[in-house]
Amino acid sequence: MRQTNELFIAEVGAKRNVAALDKIYTANARILPPGAPMIEGREQIKGFWASAMAALDVKSATLATVQAEPAGDGVVEIGSAVITTNAGQSMDVKYVVHWKQEDGQWKWHTDIWNMNG
Amino acid sequence: MRQTNELFIAEVGAKRNVAALDKIYTANARILPPGAPMIEGREQIKGFWASAMAALDVKSATLATVQAEPAGDGVVEIGSAVITTNAGQSMDVKYVVHWKQEDGQWKWHTDIWNMNG
Repeated sequence: MRQTNELFIAEVGAKRNVAALDKIYTANARILPPGAPMIEGREQIKGFWASAMAALDVKSATLATVQAEPAGDGVVEIGSAVITTNAGQSMDVKYVVHWKQEDGQWKWHTDIWNMNG
Repeated sequence: MRQTNELFIAEVGAKRNVAALDKIYTANARILPPGAPMIEGREQIKGFWASAMAALDVKSATLATVQAEPAGDGVVEIGSAVITTNAGQSMDVKYVVHWKQEDGQWKWHTDIWNMNG
């Protein structure tokens, strides 16, 4: 799980390399972003992140686990994130991710977040 | 689970009876509301809902399950909600709830949501 989160920080947050999302989300993952309807499927999710990263002009992102609770063959994680933009803005985000294993790798299966302020 | 959601709709949404939340949230539940930090513990959650219902002047709320996935001794639910205010405003909300059993009753253990628009 730490590996997956580090991949998101290094590849998606810092480099906007959305191809790395293949290793981060399950094929039929769902994301529930604030201000938009739910998005289903990894390909659609890649499209969302490409647009969102560009729109926010993201410089970097951090992820920190607040709690990870075993849930059958998955894990329910509560976490906090900080997104920093190239304009120097910083956003505090909190999230819940339902993790599942796919091809022996821990991935995000359900991902919902919102802003703290 | 349906019973728990119906209780929320009938008691909390329509009557703002936050005492009913004893039967809806686990004792050490966590909520992650948009625009505020995470809130831990049922008593604190009751305080949040009392304030939020009053601030929004909620008339009614509906909840609909989009997907419920077994997760060990719990369930991960994706759902959608509509909140209607006495001023006639209507808000589309989506959420993820991690359900657990407490005293033989299905309750919300982790509850996060955001707005669609």
